[in-house]
Amino acid sequence: MTHKIAILGASGYTGAELVRLIATHPSMEIVALSGDRKAGMAMAEVFPHLRHLDLPNLVKIEEIDFSGVDLAFCALPHATSQSVISQLPTTLKIVDLSADFRLRDPAAYEKWYGKPHSALEMQKEAVYGLTEFYREEIKQARLVAGTGCNAATGQYALSPLVEAGVIDLDEILIDLKAAVSGAGRSLKENLLHAELSEGYHAYAAGGTHRHLGEFDQEFSKLAGRPVQVQFTPHLIPANRGILATVYVRGDAAVVHQTLANKYEGETFIEVLPMGQLPSTKHIRGSNFVHIGVITDRIEGRVIVVAALDNLTKGSSGQALQNANLMLGEPEETGLMLAPVFP
Amino acid sequence: MTHKIAILGASGYTGAELVRLIATHPSMEIVALSGDRKAGMAMAEVFPHLRHLDLPNLVKIEEIDFSGVDLAFCALPHATSQSVISQLPTTLKIVDLSADFRLRDPAAYEKWYGKPHSALEMQKEAVYGLTEFYREEIKQARLVAGTGCNAATGQYALSPLVEAGVIDLDEILIDLKAAVSGAGRSLKENLLHAELSEGYHAYAAGGTHRHLGEFDQEFSKLAGRPVQVQFTPHLIPANRGILATVYVRGDAAVVHQTLANKYEGETFIEVLPMGQLPSTKHIRGSNFVHIGVITDRIEGRVIVVAALDNLTKGSSGQALQNANLMLGEPEETGLMLAPVFP
Amino acid sequence: MTHKIAILGASGYTGAELVRLIATHPSMEIVALSGDRKAGMAMAEVFPHLRHLDLPNLVKIEEIDFSGVDLAFCALPHATSQSVISQLPTTLKIVDLSADFRLRDPAAYEKWYGKPHSALEMQKEAVYGLTEFYREEIKQARLVAGTGCNAATGQYALSPLVEAGVIDLDEILIDLKAAVSGAGRSLKENLLHAELSEGYHAYAAGGTHRHLGEFDQEFSKLAGRPVQVQFTPHLIPANRGILATVYVRGDAAVVHQTLANKYEGETFIEVLPMGQLPSTKHIRGSNFVHIGVITDRIEGRVIVVAALDNLTKGSSGQALQNANLMLGEPEETGLMLAPVFP
Amino acid sequence: MTHKIAILGASGYTGAELVRLIATHPSMEIVALSGDRKAGMAMAEVFPHLRHLDLPNLVKIEEIDFSGVDLAFCALPHATSQSVISQLPTTLKIVDLSADFRLRDPAAYEKWYGKPHSALEMQKEAVYGLTEFYREEIKQARLVAGTGCNAATGQYALSPLVEAGVIDLDEILIDLKAAVSGAGRSLKENLLHAELSEGYHAYAAGGTHRHLGEFDQEFSKLAGRPVQVQFTPHLIPANRGILATVYVRGDAAVVHQTLANKYEGETFIEVLPMGQLPSTKHIRGSNFVHIGVITDRIEGRVIVVAALDNLTKGSSGQALQNANLMLGEPEETGLMLAPVFP
Repeated sequence: MTHKIAILGASGYTGAELVRLIATHPSMEIVALSGDRKAGMAMAEVFPHLRHLDLPNLVKIEEIDFSGVDLAFCALPHATSQSVISQLPTTLKIVDLSADFRLRDPAAYEKWYGKPHSALEMQKEAVYGLTEFYREEIKQARLVAGTGCNAATGQYALSPLVEAGVIDLDEILIDLKAAVSGAGRSLKENLLHAELSEGYHAYAAGGTHRHLGEFDQEFSKLAGRPVQVQFTPHLIPANRGILATVYVRGDAAVVHQTLANKYEGETFIEVLPMGQLPSTKHIRGSNFVHIGVITDRIEGRVIVVAALDNLTKGSSGQALQNANLMLGEPEETGLMLAPVFP
Repeated sequence: MTHKIAILGASGYTGAELVRLIATHPSMEIVALSGDRKAGMAMAEVFPHLRHLDLPNLVKIEEIDFSGVDLAFCALPHATSQSVISQLPTTLKIVDLSADFRLRDPAAYEKWYGKPHSALEMQKEAVYGLTEFYREEIKQARLVAGTGCNAATGQYALSPLVEAGVIDLDEILIDLKAAVSGAGRSLKENLLHAELSEGYHAYAAGGTHRHLGEFDQEFSKLAGRPVQVQFTPHLIPANRGILATVYVRGDAAVVHQTLANKYEGETFIEVLPMGQLPSTKHIRGSNFVHIGVITDRIEGRVIVVAALDNLTKGSSGQALQNANLMLGEPEETGLMLAPVFP
Repeated sequence: MTHKIAILGASGYTGAELVRLIATHPSMEIVALSGDRKAGMAMAEVFPHLRHLDLPNLVKIEEIDFSGVDLAFCALPHATSQSVISQLPTTLKIVDLSADFRLRDPAAYEKWYGKPHSALEMQKEAVYGLTEFYREEIKQARLVAGTGCNAATGQYALSPLVEAGVIDLDEILIDLKAAVSGAGRSLKENLLHAELSEGYHAYAAGGTHRHLGEFDQEFSKLAGRPVQVQFTPHLIPANRGILATVYVRGDAAVVHQTLANKYEGETFIEVLPMGQLPSTKHIRGSNFVHIGVITDRIEGRVIVVAALDNLTKGSSGQALQNANLMLGEPEETGLMLAPVFP
Repeated sequence: MTHKIAILGASGYTGAELVRLIATHPSMEIVALSGDRKAGMAMAEVFPHLRHLDLPNLVKIEEIDFSGVDLAFCALPHATSQSVISQLPTTLKIVDLSADFRLRDPAAYEKWYGKPHSALEMQKEAVYGLTEFYREEIKQARLVAGTGCNAATGQYALSPLVEAGVIDLDEILIDLKAAVSGAGRSLKENLLHAELSEGYHAYAAGGTHRHLGEFDQEFSKLAGRPVQVQFTPHLIPANRGILATVYVRGDAAVVHQTLANKYEGETFIEVLPMGQLPSTKHIRGSNFVHIGVITDRIEGRVIVVAALDNLTKGSSGQALQNANLMLGEPEETGLMLAPVFP
């Protein structure tokens, strides 16, 4: 059986990544692609790398007949996403890649995104899309909220540890390095090649990055009490990949074993042998996460490093993994592509 | 039916690329991997990006039992390749990725590679692996010689034009830009990041690059008379991708139409609309070739630009395409991966 | 004696490069900086790398009192430049970095830039700023027109050969590779890191690039008859540097000797030993030009390769060199910075 | 008066950087360059970007007549450095760029470098070359030990804070991002463009990096009691630049003020306005250090970020600054080059 798929907001990087992944998916067919400012164009004009595929042209969302659609990926900007999704048929399954349905608490949404949520009912209904932690809920969900790409990376390193109570919850620090595609295809001076290449710097430092809302929500839930982490992202001169260097306190062997146990049997999560650390180079273009653990020279301090591809496991790959679950397909279908190296 | 595959020389980039592609191939199973200096190691140690795969460890070639092998990819250095291949069982199908069996004329081999060929019988038997031009011979072949990656790029742009006689055969100039992975994983100063990044230069200029042997052989054969092209490769600060800017004389519309006709129905070759030119960015990590044609302001001058990924269509993807043909599989199996962008 | 300098359009890359170079110039003082959209800001806000310098804030052009200014560099967009310059005091020395005064023929200007020139009198007066070829005129000039950066690179390789008549004037082909800073700090999708890095492609192919106007003008003047070259620029994933691979017909030894003779005694032009070719990596951040000559395997064909930094010798360094001449300073003052490698 | 300079180990990146800087130094003349494996070659062959300079050829160290030399920069590998330096005339001023004389405690040297020091007397005599902290000692010194480039970056962010006692000495964490030229021109697989570009990872994690020896020595001395920091370096796909993100506990305003006070009047150290953070892009190719301070959302936590160019302020620029002091020249001579951007 072939599932009919729509992608809303297909002219951005996460939209293109969805098309790339679905291109070899045996039981999905893309029947509609939207792109407001580029409506009327062929995908090959917007993304020449997809030229070999037989795809529908980009249209405006209101032109799509959703009656023939089984599932829609929504890759729109936040705020836009909630207003679009609230107008879609209530029978349509939706995987949202924006930030709009990640936070369950309306006050938290308003705090981090600067205005009240306009679709509170749907916000309540949405399931947080970190697959390995919400698998059963996702299978039953109508609306799944894709996680932040930085938020996913930090959680893969930390969630099992917070849940198991094997680290000091008041001493968690995430120093994260993110490639530029996470910022999307937007025309900003700091995303120009001449501005970014051969340079790197921190951004949204000091506890101001919006993905902190997700960390607070998820870690506090797992711990059963408020948890606040320190989080400093950096922009790195590369196109894909996030590396989270996470500093915790506990016993390194216990930390490593806790992660290994939690992810045993998980197709996409690889816990490296104790003392080995990952590189973003080794997960590029794939849905895999590599996690390493090393002990520090200072007793009781442990470093956990996690790497994933922000466009794949950090957004579009995760979205497809969740869509597979929602549609009753094997979770890994279309996602077993090996990383592209070098 | 599953074909049993061996990869000789699996510790280099083309070996790793073969593993990446075969990883999702439904009817191939890798049963042996060789890597002389790294014999005894797991592939995950040599190429951590392949960590998720269940692969045999690297061994020495002499440790492989070829009786259970249907086809061997040989990704060894030239010269080594001919001596290894001449020792392999004569029933084994072989796709060689080295330069050893590309040139049919022993004198040409000696001229370009500096010493006599040591397996002249096999040299005669080998079929040149430019799939779209040797498809029927490849289906019947026991030994297929992978083309040079630069040579493939130039030929995709030029061979149909030479064959059809629509361009001036004495006025062909190929200015080619190649990414660094084409030079392999070798420890050379000029391949260091600090030496290469932010710089670019010509190399093997003046008609000294060995792939000229392939151009001479193939273009002369197609034209039925000696053809010599001018060819200047450049090393560009990128990891994957070759762009060949080819300057010819003729009628642009005829040139474009000749290419479009020749490649009509070819899965992997995309001839862009007249006046559009390709980018290496749009074929990265894939087996696709993009070809564009534009007319120059000087009458009678035409520019043809071809782009492909040196590790995929330029070597390992081509090798797999040929292996599919040799094993009776659909040609495109395992090769429909969309390019990775950005 | 200290010369008072104004830089109009100081918020772009060429403006910043002028400031960088003048920062260690012993006899120039920057007294005014303009930047329309950024008027009121400190340079350190617009270009944090200049933070250590004591510079005037950016103002609007009309706020500048030119009575105390000896020379103005004008780094504005073309068209804007001519209208601004025509309003400046007629006693002010001006080095214009835009395209507005490069072409002497009003018809040629209109052809390449799409509209009539609005300051024809000044256009006539302007001296073309290729220092090594117009040194005496520049010394006397009030208005010097900076050359196109691509145009400069091609001319350094070709002008002595055209002038000496040692190459076939009807068979000149320039395949040029340019870094991205040549496109300025403009917000265009194709200049984003994610779009450009790891990719390369031709642009303005087919004889449509505006710098052809300069080639036509200068080569025809030197030859004493119309000369039209073929010219295809490519965008390369690097920030600085132009490499022009120039294909000509003649005798390689004569070509090499002609270049060596012409540039003997020139501080900034290095002709490499016969058979050696330059890399952009070796002139980055400097005012030097490296030129190499190699013979092709096809008799009578010669390859000349020239490399320079588009922001230095290709624009702001050239501008400063010319300003030195106009102000009676030694030509190389402030310009002897060695290239930055790696 | 012109000082006669020798550079031992001139065929590496720090050697080349010294030549670049000294090229425009008004009172230094390079009279000897050594490079063991490249003895007999011209510098232009080893470093074509220095082609325009009139430099002595590379020779073996034993060929140099030191009687005419005022000061030698020693850019040799550690261990080699101590054995070479112990043979040099005792009247010669020396700036050593290796690790050999950074640690004052022989036991510490043996711990971090794996074997006993062979020139203990000289080790005692050497002055640690962090100019802003050892200026007076350096002026009097005969032998100055260049600091580690990572060590310098961390100390610029931390030393004033440790000295002033305004942060918790047991809670200091340095997450550092380093460009690849810090690893030198050595032929290692992980330094290849294809391995490094588009990837990043931690290295020498867990408190094993040798620069920890310098942190321990200097911070403990400033604090008057043992101080151990946590330190994790990362390799970033860029050629130049170190960014140290330093996590401390204290009052952000006090931290900022302490740094501002300490560096007031320092030519090369720029403390940014509170809340602004630096980028490596803004110090490339220069001797400047940019330092920023921001408060975290968690009370009492402060982030200090320091950026410098590892080849300039991190090694060769620092070395020249110290040499100026040792020779009685103004400290900043030859070092006021503005950063190269973009």
